[in-house]
Amino acid sequence: MRDFTIAVIQNRTIHDKEKNIINALDLVKKAAGKGASLVMLPEIFLYPYELSKLAIVVDSDGSTLKRLSQTAKENRIFLCTGSFPVQENNKIYNRAFLLGPDGSVLLTHDKCHLFDVRLPNLVSEESKVFTAGSQARTIKTDLGSIGMLVCYDIRFPEISRKLALANAEIILVPAAFNTVTGPAHWHTILRARAIENQVFLAAASPARNNKAGYLAYGHSLVVNPWGRILTEAGTGQTILYAKLDADVLSTTRARLPLLKHRRPEIY
Amino acid sequence: MRDFTIAVIQNRTIHDKEKNIINALDLVKKAAGKGASLVMLPEIFLYPYELSKLAIVVDSDGSTLKRLSQTAKENRIFLCTGSFPVQENNKIYNRAFLLGPDGSVLLTHDKCHLFDVRLPNLVSEESKVFTAGSQARTIKTDLGSIGMLVCYDIRFPEISRKLALANAEIILVPAAFNTVTGPAHWHTILRARAIENQVFLAAASPARNNKAGYLAYGHSLVVNPWGRILTEAGTGQTILYAKLDADVLSTTRARLPLLKHRRPEIY
Repeated sequence: MRDFTIAVIQNRTIHDKEKNIINALDLVKKAAGKGASLVMLPEIFLYPYELSKLAIVVDSDGSTLKRLSQTAKENRIFLCTGSFPVQENNKIYNRAFLLGPDGSVLLTHDKCHLFDVRLPNLVSEESKVFTAGSQARTIKTDLGSIGMLVCYDIRFPEISRKLALANAEIILVPAAFNTVTGPAHWHTILRARAIENQVFLAAASPARNNKAGYLAYGHSLVVNPWGRILTEAGTGQTILYAKLDADVLSTTRARLPLLKHRRPEIY
Repeated sequence: MRDFTIAVIQNRTIHDKEKNIINALDLVKKAAGKGASLVMLPEIFLYPYELSKLAIVVDSDGSTLKRLSQTAKENRIFLCTGSFPVQENNKIYNRAFLLGPDGSVLLTHDKCHLFDVRLPNLVSEESKVFTAGSQARTIKTDLGSIGMLVCYDIRFPEISRKLALANAEIILVPAAFNTVTGPAHWHTILRARAIENQVFLAAASPARNNKAGYLAYGHSLVVNPWGRILTEAGTGQTILYAKLDADVLSTTRARLPLLKHRRPEIY
């Protein structure tokens, strides 16, 4: 990988898709203007994460992707689109795209683990809305090797390990933890994935909207391969910037060679 | 599993094996007297963790194990012996034992990942002293299903996952992180393993001895399956007690069924 600046957008969504997209694209342009080479958005960046209402923001004709692609191209940036519902073969996926500075799709990731839980004050049945993805890959870019996961995926160490073994140097995690799981697990799980895989990891959450039916945790952040948090948001709308220093990755891996010390024959 | 009290001993070691063993066994008896059903000791509980000197504390005749076994039996407790160097077929292993209340060996674990690192102010070449173990198992006991790992093993998510898939409900980790890796990674990695595998996890460290050649981090702790730290030590000699509530394990797994949501076909 090479040194570069990443921008993580924590945008606030309301119950108006068009306004949300305009707001998100404005923030992307602003981040590009500040010199970010890679900009990322959160999970379901275009509407409050309310499963019962996501049908109205499904990108069935590709128009949402087209606008994101145009923004990447006009600003000559790598853009992780966060995720949004995409329809394909009569199924709906919670899909993230990585777009190149020419607007092309470099990588997609469909959320592979669906959030079906019954926590106090939080019941979710994502599998009633989404079909789960079935693969996790990385792509080599001018910035470095990049992999993506969506939210709940990050709780499963196997899938980020798969990306690391496919040479991931940077893992991007559009996510939307909430006020139940966030305080308990967000920092610990994200930092652990960065530490054990010795990668840069950036996680983007929506800003919290207290009028929405789902209270996003916020606290978007960027962690380095040693597990240090380089920058972290609060709960409001903001753009985070972090300079990713390629030396930190190579030095960490050389000093503490975790990936070489694996014992696959035991596992 | 059933509800029970665990005691985690963070004993201070000096350069005198016999005094260390007497001190450690005294602490074990004290913990048993306070009602602990399971007592655990840290990695290399019988001497400062200085690789160049560990040859003098190798248990080649089984006498160290015998004293530990006698203590378990006399106090009718499950005893995780922490680890100590054990010679077998001309090889030396960094081995932990789980002993039953009758003094019998229920489970052994040889450290599987050896700590060969070159960190600033910390160079370690454990593979020059120890042979690595080659398996990780669990044992069903009256308290619950128990697995053990030793220190550096815990950095590799695959091996604790292997224990979880072998029905581990409690993972015991005799360890000796240091003042370089401890502040950076100890809490994050231990809590992540408990959270992602939804197990109780207890980690025992030696107390810090500022006159020793290796500065143990201390901070022994017990985490519940939701990732909450139930009790944590500072850096001095101490005994921690925690009541493990079986309901927390079953409730956590029912509400957030992580182990059922795995997608092995993708990994």
